[in-house]
Amino acid sequence: MARLVKVGAAQLGPIQRADSRSSVVERMLVLMQKAHVQDCNLVVFPELALTTFFPRWYFEDTAEADTWFESSMPSVETQPLFGAAKRYGMGFHLGYAEKVEEQGAVHRYNTAILVDPSGTIVGKYRKVHLPGHAQFDPKRKFQHLEKRYFEVGNLGFRVWRMLGGIMGMCICNDRRWPETFRVMGLQGVEMVVLGYNTPTTNSQSDEPPQLRAFHNRLSMQAGAYQNSSWVVGVAKAGREDGHELMGGSAIVAPTGEIVAEAHTLEDELVVATCDLDKCAFGKQSVFNFAAHRRIEHYGLITQQTGAVLPE
Amino acid sequence: MARLVKVGAAQLGPIQRADSRSSVVERMLVLMQKAHVQDCNLVVFPELALTTFFPRWYFEDTAEADTWFESSMPSVETQPLFGAAKRYGMGFHLGYAEKVEEQGAVHRYNTAILVDPSGTIVGKYRKVHLPGHAQFDPKRKFQHLEKRYFEVGNLGFRVWRMLGGIMGMCICNDRRWPETFRVMGLQGVEMVVLGYNTPTTNSQSDEPPQLRAFHNRLSMQAGAYQNSSWVVGVAKAGREDGHELMGGSAIVAPTGEIVAEAHTLEDELVVATCDLDKCAFGKQSVFNFAAHRRIEHYGLITQQTGAVLPE
Repeated sequence: MARLVKVGAAQLGPIQRADSRSSVVERMLVLMQKAHVQDCNLVVFPELALTTFFPRWYFEDTAEADTWFESSMPSVETQPLFGAAKRYGMGFHLGYAEKVEEQGAVHRYNTAILVDPSGTIVGKYRKVHLPGHAQFDPKRKFQHLEKRYFEVGNLGFRVWRMLGGIMGMCICNDRRWPETFRVMGLQGVEMVVLGYNTPTTNSQSDEPPQLRAFHNRLSMQAGAYQNSSWVVGVAKAGREDGHELMGGSAIVAPTGEIVAEAHTLEDELVVATCDLDKCAFGKQSVFNFAAHRRIEHYGLITQQTGAVLPE
Repeated sequence: MARLVKVGAAQLGPIQRADSRSSVVERMLVLMQKAHVQDCNLVVFPELALTTFFPRWYFEDTAEADTWFESSMPSVETQPLFGAAKRYGMGFHLGYAEKVEEQGAVHRYNTAILVDPSGTIVGKYRKVHLPGHAQFDPKRKFQHLEKRYFEVGNLGFRVWRMLGGIMGMCICNDRRWPETFRVMGLQGVEMVVLGYNTPTTNSQSDEPPQLRAFHNRLSMQAGAYQNSSWVVGVAKAGREDGHELMGGSAIVAPTGEIVAEAHTLEDELVVATCDLDKCAFGKQSVFNFAAHRRIEHYGLITQQTGAVLPE
């Protein structure tokens, strides 16, 4: 008996700094409608899906960046997404900048949520691996100030039962870290959904765009294969106010094979039917963790943050 | 100032059960001579390089398998390899089955050594991730009895300074586990050398050979990229007594790109000049561990061996 989840990876083309949230939500609703026509059970939107990728902009006073944050979810602007989910009986995943008051202080996170087919938020993730830097860096070709605007996520890498399977989330740079997928793999994850805003060029080097596209695929494929899980990675793509973001939204099978991939840098729905039962073979053979992992030799992974060179 | 190591990945074609160690060492000496002519600094031989891949054979009494083990290294048969290393001023890496008496008991390991250009053993590694099974399994198309003949390695994933860089080792199935590379990455590894004997088909499924070849590359490329290290993976390839082993020996750059790859299933020397300084960019940017890793969220990796599913 197959456990089928039909997924729509809802890539978004560029969002300019001047674009309103409502105009973006309109585009997202078009993608949800397309997904509904194709009988999708789940739509996956990118990281920070409601606005331009604002961490490229430097603000002396970080509070000036608050205009890019959501202080409630759903909000007036995003409520239609939840309405569409309920109307279509279709879950969705959404990334956004979260401003929240917790324990008497204001916190800002790069956040994603998992919404079930009734339109209810069932899971929240806050980005752990924040790339970039916290201070203006004149040596870079462009700024990548995630460490300035966001705190490190405090929710860890959890999983949730939804759509008959075990779902996990991560965000953008998290996908490059095998720890991300392994922590979810150790909870039996069967589908990891993630969004990204990844510049086409490196701010500090002349890495060619195709090498960076390869790293995107390599990270998601390795995470899928090594945990025998589906991985759905969704880009915000194209040219935002002169800054290029890569595309390459992809649905990756538990074998590490890409089964569907975006071919534009625009709003595009990439659809695949994912059989969660396909996770079982890898989890029971090569990646039967209980049979093969040897945690007594992994100590450094959790004991030590940075590299320590031998004498 | 570049730190160049010219590496010869010395793939071996099949070794039949009837082949003597001396005949294999003769073939290895030919590859070392070829490497010397090309000014290599290091030659990397496969896992269990001196014999056929014997864990495919079942022996009721495991002591009957002792014929495949080395009880000294160098031995009479392997001494010529050490002599050649010294003569050529060239290091090498060799995998073999090790039988050793330690703490009053006999132990058997799937072992690899690192030998420096003076012909001295400077490092030893014992395979941690033993694949396969310990008992005869009639449901499999062929046996893979590593868990029967070997104990889990007890030396961890160490690194050694050699040839001006930081070298690490692992063996075959270890390469599929990101923990392997990460533990060495946390010690600043700049080149991981490894050998493998990987069946072309899966003993429990109909996985196509090209998918298994993809997994070989994917694992090595992810390990290289995610730790910004060179990876040199070397196969024993071809048809051993009717059992097919994959080839695909490869030298992988710290970017994850394959810079040289075998194109036969026979004895073949794959050569590339590896600049260890190319590791620095990744280690200082995307994979600057000190800046980006968040060990407070990695706990399950070392707390828990097997997967534990959510309620």
